[in-house]
Formats: sequence, structure tokens, C-alpha cells
Amino acid sequence: MSLKIYFGPGSVALAGLIALEEANAEFEPVRVVLAEGEQRKPEFLALNKRGQVPVLIADGQVIAENIAVLTYIANRFPDAKLLPLGDPAKLARAYELLSWFATNVHIAIAQIARSERFSDNADVQAGLKESGKVRLKGVLAEFDRAASGTWLLGEDFSVVDPLAFVAWRWAERFEIDLTPHRAWAALVDRIKARPSFVRATAIESGLVTRAA
Amino acid sequence: MSLKIYFGPGSVALAGLIALEEANAEFEPVRVVLAEGEQRKPEFLALNKRGQVPVLIADGQVIAENIAVLTYIANRFPDAKLLPLGDPAKLARAYELLSWFATNVHIAIAQIARSERFSDNADVQAGLKESGKVRLKGVLAEFDRAASGTWLLGEDFSVVDPLAFVAWRWAERFEIDLTPHRAWAALVDRIKARPSFVRATAIESGLVTRAA
Ligand SMILES: N[C@@H](CCC(=O)N[C@@H](CS)C(=O)NCC(=O)O)C(=O)O
Ligand SMILES: N[C@@H](CCC(=O)N[C@@H](CS)C(=O)NCC(=O)O)C(=O)O
Repeated sequence: MSLKIYFGPGSVALAGLIALEEANAEFEPVRVVLAEGEQRKPEFLALNKRGQVPVLIADGQVIAENIAVLTYIANRFPDAKLLPLGDPAKLARAYELLSWFATNVHIAIAQIARSERFSDNADVQAGLKESGKVRLKGVLAEFDRAASGTWLLGEDFSVVDPLAFVAWRWAERFEIDLTPHRAWAALVDRIKARPSFVRATAIESGLVTRAA
Repeated sequence: MSLKIYFGPGSVALAGLIALEEANAEFEPVRVVLAEGEQRKPEFLALNKRGQVPVLIADGQVIAENIAVLTYIANRFPDAKLLPLGDPAKLARAYELLSWFATNVHIAIAQIARSERFSDNADVQAGLKESGKVRLKGVLAEFDRAASGTWLLGEDFSVVDPLAFVAWRWAERFEIDLTPHRAWAALVDRIKARPSFVRATAIESGLVTRAA
């Protein structure tokens, strides 16, 4: 079995790195520096023509889209219990959060940081950046509601939790006041305390280049 | 076990209706006429504050987000084999398509039909509507590539397939020339030939008000 994950520092792909570390998987991390446009190089576009991370190569199969990457890892390593696979109701809640993140939080971020995805027009792009920040603030409150338990799904950690940290880091980057978000902040602290987080962020920063 | 699904005629929620019919599930369909703004009525907002369909109520649990609704149905009725639950690689492919649909096809549609989600500014909204159609055309070609087998995942029908019809209907509504899309058109024909499609669209049209 071979696993290779393309990630961008600071991106949603950290969730996949954390999931792989939680599973104690052997994998090769490949750093794609988004700030330098490495995601638009021909070699990377050949893997994912949308020029986005994460991309997971699992035994030769190219898997794009964060939700799909996390689904693969959770199902490939069922002993790590990264998703409640035996419980349709809980599993639905997991995918509700994953989908909400992808279609609301992540789209608000894209409005701010990748407004060219939505329009070529400079005025439209400027307007989107502005409203993206308002929209982002509006959706973030949901993290506090979702973070009322120990983890987003309740008692058990899952692949959904790293997204709470990913969003927290984005909110910091866009200078959103995070002081009102007590429940979410506490969840972020619990995530940071996990060994998987420490190992994944060391890989993300480029300090460690090979996992497991 | 009780199942109630809120759907909007012409919306992505048709996928959930088809999935429930494939599973021969007993369920209560509730029509939310989006064109009349019924999704913004207090009763509906109390279920889903985002004012969007689909919403599935499964034994009292409110499940929003299309991906989550389809995940629930596939896992709740495993005998219907609506997702390749035992095969991590194929399952990842299923979620890659579901996520691509939600974050690309559906977001392009939202740019056109729900530009107010992105900005309050009328000029930005007008720009988004225009570029949304270009973006939609750009993403639709992917359906032909994905439709090279009998079904989107290959030999077996899955909950991903109805989305090919949903997107086809949207493309027709926005007057996109569909003649070049031969493989996708053939897939749409295969979907239309399934009894589940006939039953689900009868419910969607309001001709049938109670399933199973
Ligand atoms: N729908 C995709 C979106 C992925 C995405 O937007 N990734 C960002 C990083 S968080 C990216 O690669 N951006 C680079 C670019 O757009 O140039 C998913 O959920 O994986
Ligand atoms: N991310 C949501 C999006 C759902 C969505 O946008 N639904 C549309 C119908 S296709 C809707 O309810 N629109 C009504 C509105 O925005 O007012 C999902 O995937 O379920």
C-alpha cells in the first residue's frame, strides 16, 4: 500500500495530515507552496486540473477534494475510528459538518483569497473580498454551537475536528476577532494537544519531511 | 423508524428522493416551493437556518446538506447498495464527485440563481450572475469524462448518479447548449429509465404526495 499526500501549508489539507497521523499510517507528504503558485505548475495540474490541495495518491488512484481524502483515510484505517462508520445518524452529522465547511466556510475563504474563481472582473473581485469577510464572520458562530461537546461529534474525535483548527487559523489570518468564541477556542486547544496535531504541523511547516 | 424529506421542485433535493425510492424506503415528502420563498418561512428556518433544501428528518434528527442526506440514506439502507461502503477507494471516488458537485457545480449555480449569498452589492451580484454561467459551462465538461462507464462509479448505480440529472436540468434552465455532451446525455437517459426516477419525479411534481 502506498500513500502520498500533496498539501499546502496553511490550507485545509492539514486535516488529511492529521488524519493520517491519527491512523499511524505510513505516507509521503509533498509540500505545495500555494503562496508561490506551485499548485499551478504543470506537474501538479496533471494530478488535479483544478490546481487545488489536498490531493491524495492511494495506490496510484488520485483523490482530490478534502471530503474524499478524509473519507478514504477513515475507511482505509477503520481501527483508528476517525468516522462513526457503523452509525448512519452520527455519520450523517459528520458529513453535514464536512459539507457545511466545504460549501460555506471554505467558499467564504475563497471569496476573500481566491476571488478570481468567481469572476474575471476586478470590481466584482473587490466586492467579493469585502463581503467574504462578512460572510465568514457570519458562519463562524456555528463552530461554537457545534463545539458544545468534547469533540464536534460528541465523545469521539473524528476527521471533522481538524477543520475547527483550520478555520481558526484562517480567521486569525483575516484578523477576525476571536475573543467571543469561547467554546470553539477550547476545542482548538484540545486539538492542539493531540500528538497527531504536533506531528502533522511539523510536517506542514517543512521541519519534518517524512512521516512514520 | 420515521423519515421525512423536505425538497424543492427543480432542486438538488431530487437526489434524496431518488435515493429513498431506490431503497424502497417509507418516507413523507414535504414540498418547499423555492420560487415562492417557502424556504424563508419561520417554520422552515427553524429546521435549517440556512433556508436550504434538502433537509431530512430521520427519527427526529435534522440532517441538512445534500451530501449528508445521501450518506444517511446509503448507510441506513445498506442492502440497496447506494454507495460502495466496503471499498475505500471507490467510496473516495464517490465523495470526490459529491464534493466536486457541491463546491463547483452547485456554487456556479448559486452564483447565477442566488448571487445574494455572496454579496449585498447589486453590481457584484450582476457580475456574479454573468460569470457564473461561464463557470458552469467550464465545469460541466467533467460530466462527460465521469460518464464513461454505465454509471458514474462504473458498473453500479449509486447516489452520485442522480446529480448528473440535476445538473442537466439546471443547464437546460440556463440555456446552455447541451448537444456536445453525448456521454453525459446517455447517462441522463439511463437515469430517467429507472423506476426510482419515475416515482421520485412524480413526487417532486406534486402529483404524488405520499411514497411507498
Ligand atoms: N473543494 C476543494 C477546495 C480545495 C481548495 O480550495 N484548496 C485551496 C487551499 S485551502 C487551494 O488549493 N487553493 C489554491 C488555489 O486556489 O490556487 C476541497 O474541498 O478540497
Ligand atoms: N450546501 C447545500 C446547498 C443547498 C442549496 O443551495 N439548495 C438550494 C436548492 S438546489 C436551495 O435550497 N436554495 C434556496 C435558497 O437559497 O433560497 C447542500 O449541498 O445541500
